[in-house]
Amino acid sequence: MLLTRFFQSVLALVCQVSLLYAQQAISISSPDKTVLLTIGNTSTGNVTYRISYKGKKVIEPSGLGFVFSKPQVSLTTFSITATDSSTVDETWKPVWGEVSQIRNHYKELALMLTDKASSGISIRVRFRVFNDGVGFRYEFPQQKALSHFVVDDEKTQFTVAADHKTFWIPGDYDTNEYLYNTTKLSEVNAPAALDKEKDIALKSPIGPDAIQSPVLFKTADGLYISLYEAALINYPVMHFRLDKKALRLTTQLVPDAVGNKAYLQTPTQTPWRTIIVSDKATELLSSKLILNLNEPSTIADPSWIKPQKFMGMWWEMHIGKATWEKAGGKHGANTQNVKKYIDFAAKYGFDGVLVEGWNVGWEDWFGNWKENVFDFVTPYPDYNLDSLTKYAQQKGVRIIMHHETSGSVTNYERRMDAAFQYMVKEGINTVKTGYVGRIIPRGEHHDGQWMVGHYQRVAEKAAQYKIMLDSHESSHPTGLHRTYPNWMASEAARGSEFNNAPTLGIIPEHTTILPFTRLLGGPMDFTPGLFRFKLNQFDSTRTTRVRTTLTKQLALYITIYGPLQMAADLPENYEKHMDAFQFIRDVAVDWDDTKILAAEPGDYVTIARKAKGKNEWFIGSITDENSRDQTLPLDFLEPSKTYEATLYRDADNADWDTNPEAYVIEKKQVTNKTKLPIRLAKGGGCAIRIVRQ
Amino acid sequence: MLLTRFFQSVLALVCQVSLLYAQQAISISSPDKTVLLTIGNTSTGNVTYRISYKGKKVIEPSGLGFVFSKPQVSLTTFSITATDSSTVDETWKPVWGEVSQIRNHYKELALMLTDKASSGISIRVRFRVFNDGVGFRYEFPQQKALSHFVVDDEKTQFTVAADHKTFWIPGDYDTNEYLYNTTKLSEVNAPAALDKEKDIALKSPIGPDAIQSPVLFKTADGLYISLYEAALINYPVMHFRLDKKALRLTTQLVPDAVGNKAYLQTPTQTPWRTIIVSDKATELLSSKLILNLNEPSTIADPSWIKPQKFMGMWWEMHIGKATWEKAGGKHGANTQNVKKYIDFAAKYGFDGVLVEGWNVGWEDWFGNWKENVFDFVTPYPDYNLDSLTKYAQQKGVRIIMHHETSGSVTNYERRMDAAFQYMVKEGINTVKTGYVGRIIPRGEHHDGQWMVGHYQRVAEKAAQYKIMLDSHESSHPTGLHRTYPNWMASEAARGSEFNNAPTLGIIPEHTTILPFTRLLGGPMDFTPGLFRFKLNQFDSTRTTRVRTTLTKQLALYITIYGPLQMAADLPENYEKHMDAFQFIRDVAVDWDDTKILAAEPGDYVTIARKAKGKNEWFIGSITDENSRDQTLPLDFLEPSKTYEATLYRDADNADWDTNPEAYVIEKKQVTNKTKLPIRLAKGGGCAIRIVRQ
Repeated sequence: MLLTRFFQSVLALVCQVSLLYAQQAISISSPDKTVLLTIGNTSTGNVTYRISYKGKKVIEPSGLGFVFSKPQVSLTTFSITATDSSTVDETWKPVWGEVSQIRNHYKELALMLTDKASSGISIRVRFRVFNDGVGFRYEFPQQKALSHFVVDDEKTQFTVAADHKTFWIPGDYDTNEYLYNTTKLSEVNAPAALDKEKDIALKSPIGPDAIQSPVLFKTADGLYISLYEAALINYPVMHFRLDKKALRLTTQLVPDAVGNKAYLQTPTQTPWRTIIVSDKATELLSSKLILNLNEPSTIADPSWIKPQKFMGMWWEMHIGKATWEKAGGKHGANTQNVKKYIDFAAKYGFDGVLVEGWNVGWEDWFGNWKENVFDFVTPYPDYNLDSLTKYAQQKGVRIIMHHETSGSVTNYERRMDAAFQYMVKEGINTVKTGYVGRIIPRGEHHDGQWMVGHYQRVAEKAAQYKIMLDSHESSHPTGLHRTYPNWMASEAARGSEFNNAPTLGIIPEHTTILPFTRLLGGPMDFTPGLFRFKLNQFDSTRTTRVRTTLTKQLALYITIYGPLQMAADLPENYEKHMDAFQFIRDVAVDWDDTKILAAEPGDYVTIARKAKGKNEWFIGSITDENSRDQTLPLDFLEPSKTYEATLYRDADNADWDTNPEAYVIEKKQVTNKTKLPIRLAKGGGCAIRIVRQ
Repeated sequence: MLLTRFFQSVLALVCQVSLLYAQQAISISSPDKTVLLTIGNTSTGNVTYRISYKGKKVIEPSGLGFVFSKPQVSLTTFSITATDSSTVDETWKPVWGEVSQIRNHYKELALMLTDKASSGISIRVRFRVFNDGVGFRYEFPQQKALSHFVVDDEKTQFTVAADHKTFWIPGDYDTNEYLYNTTKLSEVNAPAALDKEKDIALKSPIGPDAIQSPVLFKTADGLYISLYEAALINYPVMHFRLDKKALRLTTQLVPDAVGNKAYLQTPTQTPWRTIIVSDKATELLSSKLILNLNEPSTIADPSWIKPQKFMGMWWEMHIGKATWEKAGGKHGANTQNVKKYIDFAAKYGFDGVLVEGWNVGWEDWFGNWKENVFDFVTPYPDYNLDSLTKYAQQKGVRIIMHHETSGSVTNYERRMDAAFQYMVKEGINTVKTGYVGRIIPRGEHHDGQWMVGHYQRVAEKAAQYKIMLDSHESSHPTGLHRTYPNWMASEAARGSEFNNAPTLGIIPEHTTILPFTRLLGGPMDFTPGLFRFKLNQFDSTRTTRVRTTLTKQLALYITIYGPLQMAADLPENYEKHMDAFQFIRDVAVDWDDTKILAAEPGDYVTIARKAKGKNEWFIGSITDENSRDQTLPLDFLEPSKTYEATLYRDADNADWDTNPEAYVIEKKQVTNKTKLPIRLAKGGGCAIRIVRQ
């Protein structure tokens, strides 16, 4: 088609232009005054923000700005042409969660920044200052000078005050499944971190001085600082480029196939950039700042959304008992095998059975960048899905669907309606999605704007079909489970499957860092509950192993929050430890309250949670490679009531390395006055169930 | 997801390996011996083919080969390890077409080429030698050494024997809407050709020495040679890189977003590379070689597929009477306006009314690379589609749907089912698709493998819904209307809308070159039938104009074959020439037979066609900027019968430039002995209807 006479209508100019605040500094503090945000605007137009916490420097003056490739303009010097401030204090109830209600309390400052150069463009920056940190985002109002635009670079800076201890993973556009590294900020070495990871199938390193968000700092003066983002919608993931000398992180957005970062249209906004800060590690873990920065639920009637525990045809493929693919004679997902899982799950009160490898396509699904790889509706001939869904239903269990896309997302989007309709027809209401491999559209990345849009489309379409979603290999979570409560979990970090990775595996400290980093964004489908630690059960050549004790596996059900919790091991492995398995049967998956009892990133995490609608508490305590003694004050229990505590603890001689299966189960009477001593073995943990008598 | 233990099953090795034919030359000739194909294989492994026609050189020895990027291998030297030959002579009936039956008669030679280097890969090259040329393709059998692979480059060469007169358009990955250039091959100047085209919205030049396929040569010794392709499925479009000194064209495949050309899996094959040759221009135009190289129809019951004539809410947007978009107050597709079209179409016996600009989204559809641009199911509020489809139906007319994608194909693929379901619900069974703008997935091109796959998916899905398809801005046609007879037409060249292009417009010779180039691949929705030549009717500032006479506009209904024919002008313009409009009312759109009476590329084309199932013939004759006298032998008429011929001819003083609307309508009695003299004005034409008495 020829094009000669098309014009666009451009809508009204919104922003006012008046030079009110040049060279001023504007400050706003959190409701409790602990957090102070100060905005500076120099006469040359640089706008900076800085943050302090109880007088200690959190963020040094740091710049804001953008480069657009269309219109071609660099927005780095501004006049502050309007300000607006307000206070919000409200309480809301999540559909499910760690607590039954959440307070959203902040002071807000919105600045209209008008380009000092000639573009005429105005951007609003909206800051929200909470008692535990700051969130801010850029808003692009509808205006004559800006309608459709393309982001080439976001220039948001985060300059820290000293060379902090930093918990980081290397910058990568496609995977976040790295082990965390702990170094000084100036000693971040992304290439070395990338190099040592031999077991990650697809790596797309950003560059030598790039790390991912979230990043966690521990300062010498005792602050814990998290840099992350909230409400990642229609925008690429934010990672960071480092200037190690300046101790400065700058946003590194994920590019698309042609190198652009985001295609936007006014009115619109970026996700929130978040700085969570506390002088107590436990407080950082109970922050609801990211959730509060997300929009309320879009699902009017969420009654069909249920936290659940499940087992699955999955780990046995990892450890070599079976295969996803039918070819080769070891196909796991055959009718008979899956029946056994259903029987076991039904017997022990599980809600679901995940079945991977059920559908035609696994013979060549990986590594071929093949587009037309799965159709999501054709079971292998040895897997009678029809009869199994009925069989499971009779036993009170539901099959959980698996949609592995192989990264071929164009293919999945074409077939998604048919795939969900098939699920509805079969009475299946939970799906685990997967994105293993290079993305199609080719040139796109897992963390780019296009894929971020895809994950959202899946969540929205799943909701239309009343389907619960658990996404694997998706981008890091940013609190969107508030907005889409059917998006119940994601992987988006190094999960338990890496216990079977030959090179690094999962070292004991990993699960003590996750709550301070990845988990701040939302629930993880970590798949804990492994009861067998040497993974040579079906393949004697394997040297892979689980680096925890058995009771640490139990404690993870508490320390790694998620409303979808898998009991990942094989029925035959559980059958050898039915006494310990009782904890997995008992543990709740939805909570009225959560108390972070003790925490230090890289060292230990102890969390107590109250089961939803019950007089039951569960405590999980985990440690890194060091053994540890803790005393747990149970003052969160109701006064004047007696409880029975069942402790699943490491035996005195337990050790993740030499004696991981040694555990003791013991019962104690406790009250809210009890100070409960526990001992964690090296790589160990303790899981406790406390029931009111 | 972690990946450690996946293996692929690889299937049986098919090809035999034996050194049978080293250094031999193998020849095969067409059934009538006019075309001779000779294969050479040197001791170093170069395999070449050459072609002659009646002893004259068509293709000089030219190489074959590939470069793959995965596995990384260059396949350029081969041993011929097997040969197979056969003869086919069959006749088949198209669902619709220029003739009611087609003979497919060729000799075939299949060579198994085994890599002389160490890859172990074998490729079969299958040649089919017809009386009017050669088609060959590469086939990749299932084999141990080759399963999934990525094509980096195809090394097929076409070396011509002399510096021929060449009809070409510049190489471009996204558009084929150029005027043809006529130069010696050595004088091809793609940059200059690109530079002069100011009215093409999106250009993606391939490079200074690149031209598109099809290309046409006229040799000094009187041959007409077309290089093109057939059955373009799951592969990018073939264009050409030129070596002007060597007079050699080499395949230039269209890359994807990351630079790869094609992702393939054995067993598979490339499209056919076609060399059509004749010493008569008329024979080239009647070649069925490309159709014969396509697979038979996939549609078991094609009874719902009907050639049709239509009018449309379309040209009035081009010439400034109305707009596609609602904003601005000149929205064309409102209920009242479209009713007028329906009334007019019904009154004069048209089958359909195309309505563009009917749906929400046109305000910012172009130039923004916006993904979520149209939903294909939401009419503008001033367009009552429900009532109009019913109104049209009562009058025996059907609305034709318009799906402009704006190049946002991911969006279209997501919504295609809903869009087609909406059509079915509304009783609409024809859709015109459009791909104006840069493609999303970003980085992909209109002519790349991914989009080629898309066009096929649309044709297939449309067929599922019994919907006829007319695709605009799609890649060049390659005879796939045989396989998908519901894919009735495409644009894929510079169509009549370019009459309104300010810079070059459509010069008179353009329509005399199209039949020798673009039209060899399939029907075009050219949209002829303009009756008003200065395009300042609604905008006095416009200087655009149509460069034909009125009767040439009529003749185009015959010379540009298509089963979907639009009467493109406005009802009010037709009402001023109802006598001439009668031809458009009468002309058929499906044919029992076709005779090319006279043709010379760039100069003139005269074609006679017999209406399907009727004793009626229609003749169209067009010329370039020169006036011309022709004598038409009507020996194709039935002997001993009398016919009445109605001639719509240029008046004696007609001239496209000075007097385009001067025409004469006259009737004559004719028989198969008649030699009918006609005179074509400069830029003129003659349209004739001949009815048996």
